[in-house]
Amino acid sequence: MPVSQGDGVGTDDRLASWNDGTTKKSILDFVARVTEAGGKDYVAPEERIATFDNDGTLWSERPYPFQVAFALDRLKAMAPQHPGWRDKEPFKSALAGDLKGMLSGGYHALIAIVAATHSGMTTDEFEAEVRKWMVATRHPTTHRLFTEMVFQPMLELLTYLRANGFKTFIVSGGGIEFMRAFAEVTYGVPPEQVIGSSGKLKFEMRDGQPVLSKLPEIELVNDNVEKPAAIQKFIGRRPIAAFGNSDGDLEMLQWTAAGTGARFALLVHHNDAIREFAYDRTPSIRQLDKALDEANAKGWTVVDMKNDWRRIFPFE
Amino acid sequence: MPVSQGDGVGTDDRLASWNDGTTKKSILDFVARVTEAGGKDYVAPEERIATFDNDGTLWSERPYPFQVAFALDRLKAMAPQHPGWRDKEPFKSALAGDLKGMLSGGYHALIAIVAATHSGMTTDEFEAEVRKWMVATRHPTTHRLFTEMVFQPMLELLTYLRANGFKTFIVSGGGIEFMRAFAEVTYGVPPEQVIGSSGKLKFEMRDGQPVLSKLPEIELVNDNVEKPAAIQKFIGRRPIAAFGNSDGDLEMLQWTAAGTGARFALLVHHNDAIREFAYDRTPSIRQLDKALDEANAKGWTVVDMKNDWRRIFPFE
Repeated sequence: MPVSQGDGVGTDDRLASWNDGTTKKSILDFVARVTEAGGKDYVAPEERIATFDNDGTLWSERPYPFQVAFALDRLKAMAPQHPGWRDKEPFKSALAGDLKGMLSGGYHALIAIVAATHSGMTTDEFEAEVRKWMVATRHPTTHRLFTEMVFQPMLELLTYLRANGFKTFIVSGGGIEFMRAFAEVTYGVPPEQVIGSSGKLKFEMRDGQPVLSKLPEIELVNDNVEKPAAIQKFIGRRPIAAFGNSDGDLEMLQWTAAGTGARFALLVHHNDAIREFAYDRTPSIRQLDKALDEANAKGWTVVDMKNDWRRIFPFE
Repeated sequence: MPVSQGDGVGTDDRLASWNDGTTKKSILDFVARVTEAGGKDYVAPEERIATFDNDGTLWSERPYPFQVAFALDRLKAMAPQHPGWRDKEPFKSALAGDLKGMLSGGYHALIAIVAATHSGMTTDEFEAEVRKWMVATRHPTTHRLFTEMVFQPMLELLTYLRANGFKTFIVSGGGIEFMRAFAEVTYGVPPEQVIGSSGKLKFEMRDGQPVLSKLPEIELVNDNVEKPAAIQKFIGRRPIAAFGNSDGDLEMLQWTAAGTGARFALLVHHNDAIREFAYDRTPSIRQLDKALDEANAKGWTVVDMKNDWRRIFPFE
């Protein structure tokens, strides 16, 4: 399919921040195949489900996933009411600003901090907290708002898919209520199409009014094998396209790619240390190792950020 | 708002199976208020979330919820592979056709049977089983297919709300995967807008292909206080309209009605023993008692099936 040169007719004009090449072509070809009425790979609109990881796929995740920054800010604000945290890991390291010490506890430590800082209030109060924080806090190195650190090519891709009848979902290890507080404005993805990690909720009456309280018990860590399970639970259909950037997305991409008919699986490979960050196989909270091997073996699309993306951030 | 007399212009023509009166008027008035651009009660389309219970609200639930019939048929089919069931309740009573004995174990007994019969296969296999059963099995007294025993006025209401920009969801105690197998064709509600009780899923590889296995562990019984919690988890927005028929829907209606702005809460009252079934406060698996009191106290809409519905089933 020839790439339109901006005549205003070709739908691929919406992918203006993608350089021409095999990556962009693989997206255009897939969308053309599944939307061609009468074509052998045609997929009815209601089956055009596309799922996107968030951290590292739709926005940056370095030096740490942005929700960690939110959790740490809340931890500091809550610390006076929790004197026990001063002597207890991972809270002690976190409060001392020692992120390395905090993260030495691994995912488990992160979960403990998220559970402690994302509970003890109602769902309405939490949403208000995230919204307030999101417009008042800046990235530690770029000094941009976190919602500015979204990937322009991925915003265009979301819009392009929706214009072609796709329903776009976020399926992320990030907190479901954290993401919902900005996903609609930032990505055009409404709350009911955001799936993420979650804690338990408790319905109760306060002064005659029903509220949902956020409990400190984690109910779902939406990563790896939990992603296909969550897709089945929340969506009930297998996606025909899935987008990720780390080993945490491997099972989602496997599940998507194994369906019948045309399928699309894409990994964003962070290899641009100048314009964004460069990382892959080195162990960290999130790494891209096994999934990269599988992408190469299976012929999935791998985005070479340095060469495939003309522009990374909207503010460039 | 005057009710249109079928001139083909009034949107309320879609509610042809509703008799004119205060119930129908309450629906038309609410929709008119929230859709009137510039009006004080206007609600943006993305906030027009409407949630519907299924059993007893969108289709019949007597002599027992239809999923019970499915579970019993599966139980019989599976029994040869489970000799231990012959001496163990609630399986023993169920296999002997003693529904009363089986249900004497209450909700717990029902859950045990659902867990046993809705597991041990993949999600794809289960969906195929439900679809096959649904076109091959008939209601014990009306001898209709279960999917014919839907309420025509509620089908019209779903369509009417969607035509007015609402997004319609099912929020039911029924099994999420059971309902999804027919909800799209029967109600026009796609799988991703169906929320129900669920069991755990396990992602695994079989012969190099990923599958999701249904485990016999119940994860969510989506009733009472769990309904608002599930709405928050799956939808992430408070509905502006909710529809139910039993005490199991009370908290969903409370949660919906307590939001700011125009709100609508409706209960279907089964009082037509001739055309359908008549039941309310007498204790059973599902009853309408506390919710009816609250509806009367709060001025929620209560459907008097006998007088408000011109037609109950599509086949009449």
